[in-house]
Amino acid sequence: VLGMTGMTAYFGLLDIGRPKAGETVVISGAAGAVGCTAGQIAKIKECRVVGIVGTEEKAKLLKGHFKFDDALNYKTSSNLSEEIKSACPRGVDIYFDNVGGPISDAVLENMNPHGRVILCGQISLYNSPNAPQGPRPTPLLLSRSISMEGFIVSNFKARFPEAISVLSKWLDDGKIEASETIVQGFENLPKALIGLFSGANTGKMLVRAAA
Amino acid sequence: VLGMTGMTAYFGLLDIGRPKAGETVVISGAAGAVGCTAGQIAKIKECRVVGIVGTEEKAKLLKGHFKFDDALNYKTSSNLSEEIKSACPRGVDIYFDNVGGPISDAVLENMNPHGRVILCGQISLYNSPNAPQGPRPTPLLLSRSISMEGFIVSNFKARFPEAISVLSKWLDDGKIEASETIVQGFENLPKALIGLFSGANTGKMLVRAAA
Repeated sequence: VLGMTGMTAYFGLLDIGRPKAGETVVISGAAGAVGCTAGQIAKIKECRVVGIVGTEEKAKLLKGHFKFDDALNYKTSSNLSEEIKSACPRGVDIYFDNVGGPISDAVLENMNPHGRVILCGQISLYNSPNAPQGPRPTPLLLSRSISMEGFIVSNFKARFPEAISVLSKWLDDGKIEASETIVQGFENLPKALIGLFSGANTGKMLVRAAA
Repeated sequence: VLGMTGMTAYFGLLDIGRPKAGETVVISGAAGAVGCTAGQIAKIKECRVVGIVGTEEKAKLLKGHFKFDDALNYKTSSNLSEEIKSACPRGVDIYFDNVGGPISDAVLENMNPHGRVILCGQISLYNSPNAPQGPRPTPLLLSRSISMEGFIVSNFKARFPEAISVLSKWLDDGKIEASETIVQGFENLPKALIGLFSGANTGKMLVRAAA
């Protein structure tokens, strides 16, 4: 949590998302290290938090252990947009996007006027051989006065000490905790790396080299 | 200039675009009432200003009368992205978008890190029968830390007096001027309305009802 993933969650959610108490935050890739931390910070800020994940185990972990208000499994959903609508009765104010693609299209349809989209990752599009195509988001961003902003954590490097100080306090107070998946054995590193793209990890993906 | 179009240009460029002296601003639909005013304000802010238009007459008007640094005619361009690159040797910092679609795709490819996209209009997409498809912009927004924001001028209504005061001074000082197209005869109103979508107007499209 005190490394790059925690700071990515911290600056993305707080600086780009600007959450207010009572707002609704949707997070894709929500069981990853960044998503899971972003959700916990959104709870500290008194928001309704809904995660989107790809397994029932992850959905249970987020709702049970990490106190998300709801978690949706996009892989078993027949109509993700409708499920998001049900899980977010007051609409979506902030979307913390780790994945891009059709999942993000479904969230965008449910966004409120003056909503904010935090582009943190687009993992569903990284391995696309051509420029990925999809519905143009601009008419919706325009008609609802939505902002969408990409960032990398190093944009905020002057403020890393601030983030470490605040995150440390939240860790000490038990308000946030780390989530990680440990793969045993250096020989499994390629498998672990490829697993990032299929969602094999929960939280930060780590490989333990020594037996 | 002191009506909605001037205020749209004012708040879009200044509040969402946040221009700094020496930056490069590209404007699509640049000969329209909003685009032409936005370009003049960007010149006041000491930016390089490049307009994109659909006729040679409009390009000449912007470069000659309105002192744009350059103007590109997308209808005669064989490679708009390359032409934008040549016209913007230091890249594009701010894109004031009135049109959407492939013109905007070409501008986006040329944007600098930390660039800002002002979504003011998407006139090329309004009459699309289905949800318009195109290249997904999110990977580029993410990798270059670009923000894209839609707005309507009424979001800023509390600050209309400020805009009127500043725009009036610029008008009085001869730093900006209005641009308009007057169509004679109420019977030509439908033609004038349809003309908005083919770019028949320069500046604000007005219909004079009395003979």
